[in-house]
Amino acid sequence: MFPRKLTRQVICDLDNPIVETKAGKLRGVIVEDAYIFRGIRYAEAERFHMPHAVTPWEGVKDAIMYGPVCKEMATPIAHDAYNVPHFYFPQDENCQYLNVWTQAINDPDRKRPVMLWIHGGGFTSGSSVELYAYDGEELSKFGDVVVVSLNHRLNLLGFMDLSEYGEEYKYSGNVGMADIVEALRWIRENIAVFGGDPDNVTIMGQSGGGIKVTDLLQMPAADGLYHKGIVQSGTIANGLDIAQEDAKRLSAQVVKELGLTKETIKEIETIPYYKIARAVKAANEYFTENGEKTVSFAPVVDKDYYMGYGPVNGFRKETLSIPLIVGSVFGESANNFNNELERSHKNEWDAEKRAKFMYEMYGEYADDVLRAFKKAYPKRNEVDALFYDTGFRSGAKVYVTTRSAAGSAPVYDYSFDLECPLNGGTAPWHNAEEAYMFHNACYLEASYIPGVSEELQDAMTGAWVAFAKTGDPNHPGMPIWPPCTEKDIPCMQFDRVLNVAWNHDDELLPLVRDHRAPRNAFGARRRGRALGGGPRQSL
Amino acid sequence: MFPRKLTRQVICDLDNPIVETKAGKLRGVIVEDAYIFRGIRYAEAERFHMPHAVTPWEGVKDAIMYGPVCKEMATPIAHDAYNVPHFYFPQDENCQYLNVWTQAINDPDRKRPVMLWIHGGGFTSGSSVELYAYDGEELSKFGDVVVVSLNHRLNLLGFMDLSEYGEEYKYSGNVGMADIVEALRWIRENIAVFGGDPDNVTIMGQSGGGIKVTDLLQMPAADGLYHKGIVQSGTIANGLDIAQEDAKRLSAQVVKELGLTKETIKEIETIPYYKIARAVKAANEYFTENGEKTVSFAPVVDKDYYMGYGPVNGFRKETLSIPLIVGSVFGESANNFNNELERSHKNEWDAEKRAKFMYEMYGEYADDVLRAFKKAYPKRNEVDALFYDTGFRSGAKVYVTTRSAAGSAPVYDYSFDLECPLNGGTAPWHNAEEAYMFHNACYLEASYIPGVSEELQDAMTGAWVAFAKTGDPNHPGMPIWPPCTEKDIPCMQFDRVLNVAWNHDDELLPLVRDHRAPRNAFGARRRGRALGGGPRQSL
Repeated sequence: MFPRKLTRQVICDLDNPIVETKAGKLRGVIVEDAYIFRGIRYAEAERFHMPHAVTPWEGVKDAIMYGPVCKEMATPIAHDAYNVPHFYFPQDENCQYLNVWTQAINDPDRKRPVMLWIHGGGFTSGSSVELYAYDGEELSKFGDVVVVSLNHRLNLLGFMDLSEYGEEYKYSGNVGMADIVEALRWIRENIAVFGGDPDNVTIMGQSGGGIKVTDLLQMPAADGLYHKGIVQSGTIANGLDIAQEDAKRLSAQVVKELGLTKETIKEIETIPYYKIARAVKAANEYFTENGEKTVSFAPVVDKDYYMGYGPVNGFRKETLSIPLIVGSVFGESANNFNNELERSHKNEWDAEKRAKFMYEMYGEYADDVLRAFKKAYPKRNEVDALFYDTGFRSGAKVYVTTRSAAGSAPVYDYSFDLECPLNGGTAPWHNAEEAYMFHNACYLEASYIPGVSEELQDAMTGAWVAFAKTGDPNHPGMPIWPPCTEKDIPCMQFDRVLNVAWNHDDELLPLVRDHRAPRNAFGARRRGRALGGGPRQSL
Repeated sequence: MFPRKLTRQVICDLDNPIVETKAGKLRGVIVEDAYIFRGIRYAEAERFHMPHAVTPWEGVKDAIMYGPVCKEMATPIAHDAYNVPHFYFPQDENCQYLNVWTQAINDPDRKRPVMLWIHGGGFTSGSSVELYAYDGEELSKFGDVVVVSLNHRLNLLGFMDLSEYGEEYKYSGNVGMADIVEALRWIRENIAVFGGDPDNVTIMGQSGGGIKVTDLLQMPAADGLYHKGIVQSGTIANGLDIAQEDAKRLSAQVVKELGLTKETIKEIETIPYYKIARAVKAANEYFTENGEKTVSFAPVVDKDYYMGYGPVNGFRKETLSIPLIVGSVFGESANNFNNELERSHKNEWDAEKRAKFMYEMYGEYADDVLRAFKKAYPKRNEVDALFYDTGFRSGAKVYVTTRSAAGSAPVYDYSFDLECPLNGGTAPWHNAEEAYMFHNACYLEASYIPGVSEELQDAMTGAWVAFAKTGDPNHPGMPIWPPCTEKDIPCMQFDRVLNVAWNHDDELLPLVRDHRAPRNAFGARRRGRALGGGPRQSL
C-alpha cells in the first residue's frame, strides 16, 4: 500500500513468488524481503446469498494488486484524510478479497502466528486498504507474523434481512459477517503455504472492525477458526446490533419502494445497486415521516447465525476461552480538531481561558469534573478534561468486566493516550492507535513525534505480537500488564511513558458522561472520523 | 501524497506555515523541510460556465488535504494499478483545486522556476493526485523549484458544447481548459508568496496532460501566462480535437435525451450529474444505431477560444517563442504486459520463438522490420521489435518537425527507453517516464532498478529542471542534446546509457505502423493504461 522508498529491486515475475492454495496457484511480489499477495479472492457469493469457497482454477493467477472494495451507499468526503490518511479504492459488489504480508512462503517447518485485520467504518463503509495505517508490511517484519486483511460485504449488500422472502435469503441479514467467516475458513485451509499457523489466528479490528471481532465471538459458524481477539475502539452501545424485527421492517419497506413482491423478489438480485441504495434512503425517510424508528445496517440478532452482543445477550460459553485485548483511545471523537485559532493551542491556555471552556462544557459540574480528572490523570494537562472520551471507554469497561465475570480467558484493557502534535497539540483520535500497533507510526504526518513514536510503536506492536504468539501481551519492553477481573481494570496507558492505571477513571467517567454538554457544544467534536467513516454525500 | 517514512516532526499548525494569497490566507504543512499546500481552490464556476477567481475570505483556510477531483462518467477498475500505481480520490464537480510543493515561502528575494503539472487521462478522467508518480515533493527538492499540480473539469463537465443554447454557454465546449487558464492566472497572481517566479512558468503534462499543453499553445486566453512547455506522450492523431459541429451534434442529442429544450435548458445546470452521463451514453448509442459518428469529450475547435491542434491548423505565431520538450516512451501501449507465461521472459526467447511471434505480428514484413529495428536500435534486444510504439512516436515526429519548420523556439525530442524488470523484463509503458522526471523512481515497484534508477532520474529530472530554469534542458550529467530542425530529429534516449540518436527510426516507424497486425493480435497490447485512463465500468 505504501510507496516506500525502495533499496532493492522488487521481484514481480510470472513464476516467482508462487504459492499453491487449495483452489489454485497465485503469484505475488517480493518487496524488501517481505512477500506480499494482494487481492486474493477468498469467496464468491450471489447478492444476498451466503458466500462459498472460490471455484478452482488452472494455471497461475495474479495476486499483485488489491481487489475492489465493497460498494458504499454514499460518496466519501476527504474531510479527515489529513489526520487519518485514506486510500479510496475502486468499488465492486464482488469484493471478497484478502491480502497477505509474510516473511516466508512454502516453509512447512515453521508456522507463524496469523493476525487478521478486520477494517472499520461501522458495517457500512471502509475496506482492507482504506487507511494508510492498515499496511501490513512493517507489522509482518517486526513480529515475523503473517498479516492478513480483508474486504467483505457491507451495508445493504451485507446486512439486509430478506429472510421473509424465501429460504435462500435466510441469512441475508448476516452475509457480510459470513464473508469474514469464509475468509477464516480460507485462512484455515491455505495459510500454511504462506508461512502461517492455522491453529493460531488472532482476529483484530478497530471501530466497526472491533465490533466485528466481538460479533464473531457470538457466531457459532466461526467457532474454532480463530484463537485470540483484539477489540480496538469497538465497544459501543450494544455493539450496533440490529433487532431482527427492525431489519425485517426495513427490508419490507425497501422491497415495497422497489415495487417488488414475494413473487418477484428474485429481481432484487440483479437490479442496479444504486436503486436499492435509494430505496433504503426512501424507506428510512418514510419511517421518519411516520414516526417509526429508522434502521441502519449491522449484524441482525436472529439467535441462529448471530446471538447478539455479549454484554447484552450473554457471552457464548463456546468462546469464553478466547483471550482478548480490549481498549480505546483517550480522545476518540471528543478530541480537539478545531480550526478556530482561538480554540487551538490548548496547552498554552491560561487558567481563565480553560475555566471558560470547562464551564461551557460542564456548567455547574466543571469543578467536580476537574477534580476527578486530576485524580484520574495526575500527569496530564488539566485542559484535557475537555477532550476525554466516554463513549468507547464506557463500553470497554462494561465489556471487560462482564466478560471477566462470565469466567472468560484473560481480558487485557488499554487506552491509547499519546498527545499528537497536530494543530499545536491534539488529544489522540478515533484511529490514532492503528499506526502504532501496525508499526507504521513513522509514516503518518499528523501523529509522528521523532524518538517518541519509534519507542511507542515498538512497545505497542510488541504487545500485539506477543499476544498473537501466546495470548499474553506482556513483553520485556513494557511494565507488567495484568488482565482484568470482574472488579478491577488495570488499564495499560500507551503514552510517552507506559503506565498501568488501576480503575483510574471510575469516578471521572460517569461525571463526564452524564454532565458533558451535548455533542457539538464545544464545536470541535464532530470532526473525528465517525463510526460510519465520516460524512458522505448521498448517492 | 506519498506516506514517506518521516525523520522529522511535521509542522501542521493553525498559524504555521501561512501564506497570504490575493484572496486570503492559507495554511499548509512543513514536511521534511518542504512546504506543501494541498487543495487550494483556484477558481469557482457554475456548471457549463466559465470559471472565475475565488471569492476572498477572512481568516485562515486549511490547505492541508487534496481537494476533490472531477467527477468521472464511469467507475475505474484497478487493472493497471500495479505497474502504474493510482490514488482514487473522492470526486466532486467543484474540482478547481491545485497543490503546491516548494522550498521556501514568503521569500521575496528569490524567485524559483514554477513547474505546473497537468494530469493525463485524456480529457475524461484523471486528477492531480491520480498517480503516485505525480507527488511533487522530490522534484521540488531536487531542483529547488515550485511544483504545482491541478484538478480541472473533465468529460461532460469540461467539454460539452451548449453554445447553441445561449450566450452564457458560449465557451462551454472548452471550460475544462478555461479552468487551467484560470489556474495559470492564479499562479501569475499568487505564486510569488510560495517562492515562485510568475515570469517563469513551465507547463508540462503526460498523455492527455501533454495534449493539454499543446492545446494551451493554441488558446489566446493563455498567452503570456506560461513560458515553456513539456509534452510527454501527448502527441497523437490530431490532438484529440473535437470539431464544433460534432460537439454541437452530441449536445443536441443529449439535451433531447434529457427531455430539455432551449427554453428549459437552464435545468441542465442542476440535474444530477449521473443523469447527464447516461444521456451522453444514450446519445452515442443513438448515433451508433443510426450510422452517425460517436463523439467524445475534448477541446472544441471553435476558432475563438481554441484554434485547433498546431500541426493540423497551423501553429499560432503568438506562442512560437515557447521552447518545448516533446517525446514519448519506447513501449507506450505496445508494451508487453502479458500474463501468459509462454509470452513472458521475452529476453530469454530463442531465435525460433522470437521469429514465430515476429511472423504473427508482421507477417511477410517480419524480416524487413527486424532489419530496420536493428539499424534503429543496434544495442537493443531484437525481440523489442515486437514492442516498439508507433502511435505517440509518429505524432511526436510530426509535431517537432512541423513546429520547427514554422520557425519556433527550440524543440527538444526524447524517448524513454528503459526496460523495466516487471514480469522478467517489460518494455517501458505509457506513464513509465513520469516517476523519472518527478524524481520518484525509487518509490515505484514495477520499474525500480537499484543503481540504474537513481542515476537515470538524476539525469532526466535534471534535464526537466534545467529546461524550466533556462529553456534549455542540457546539463553536465548528460550528453549534449540539440534541438530539432525541420529535417533532423536528435532524439535523447533516456536509458541505462543516455544517447542522442539522429533520425534513428525514420525507416522503422512507417514499416511497423503500416504492417503491424491489428491491436490485440499479440494479446498483450490492451493492458497499458489507455489514453482515457483504462477500462471503466459505466455509471
